[in-house]
Amino acid sequence: MQPLQDLYPDDFAHCYGCGRLNAHGLHVKSEWRDGESVARFRPAPFHMALPGFVYGGLLASLADCHAMATAAAASMVAAGAVPGRDPTPRFVTASLHVDFLRPTPLGPELVLRARAVETGERKVVVEMQISADGAECARARVIAVRAPATMRPSLGD
Amino acid sequence: MQPLQDLYPDDFAHCYGCGRLNAHGLHVKSEWRDGESVARFRPAPFHMALPGFVYGGLLASLADCHAMATAAAASMVAAGAVPGRDPTPRFVTASLHVDFLRPTPLGPELVLRARAVETGERKVVVEMQISADGAECARARVIAVRAPATMRPSLGD
Repeated sequence: MQPLQDLYPDDFAHCYGCGRLNAHGLHVKSEWRDGESVARFRPAPFHMALPGFVYGGLLASLADCHAMATAAAASMVAAGAVPGRDPTPRFVTASLHVDFLRPTPLGPELVLRARAVETGERKVVVEMQISADGAECARARVIAVRAPATMRPSLGD
Repeated sequence: MQPLQDLYPDDFAHCYGCGRLNAHGLHVKSEWRDGESVARFRPAPFHMALPGFVYGGLLASLADCHAMATAAAASMVAAGAVPGRDPTPRFVTASLHVDFLRPTPLGPELVLRARAVETGERKVVVEMQISADGAECARARVIAVRAPATMRPSLGD
């Protein structure tokens, strides 16, 4: 199976956080398996808040893109499509909430695990944990909605 | 008066979002006046979500750093110090909530206006609006806490 973001249509693949066509971006990749999606990301040395700790805005960014992919995957399952094989529909963020439980050490690979806790036709609620070295550092709850027509470029999804 | 972030002690000035000593960072600058802080930021062309619209993770990052500076300024006022003249104490983010009210156009300078709505000795709650071309695009509510001793490098604040 492919990462969910690699199956966004080209017109939706320019996101700074996860677009494969954004040369400057973070390239978040989310993989779907058994009702959960997982992303792994190693911050750069300059992604710091204070020396030794990961910048919270980066964690929020990772949570944002990982949640959109998770929402898309959950909506695909509900519609009978196969995440990681079929095209991924594009959701956008209606709200993003991150609780920073402890300082996140800068160095280890971060692991994000997310699930949809509500899956409607146009709105999906995603909850996620972000861990480093096996310790949970942050939690996020994200409300995703289908990209509205006003945000869509030439291609629909 | 100077931007609040320019008065963080050097050891706290490496933040990817607002550290003057981070060569790769966003360099958010917040100015305090009359109980409110204002930051202005023009996203780069690659800071996109979909073509034509600002990446939500960037908005969350701007909100994060602007809120920490606002929390610091409010705490300074409560302690009789002068924001923009005296050293800025470093707060860190306990929770970050952003509501995306409408797609944020990519191109115009963004304006962030923030106020502390609760100012405790160690915890400050900040609310903020993010606007583009005079239209409010996002709102954020951020809980800031004094940087704990475990996150502090050699200098205290």
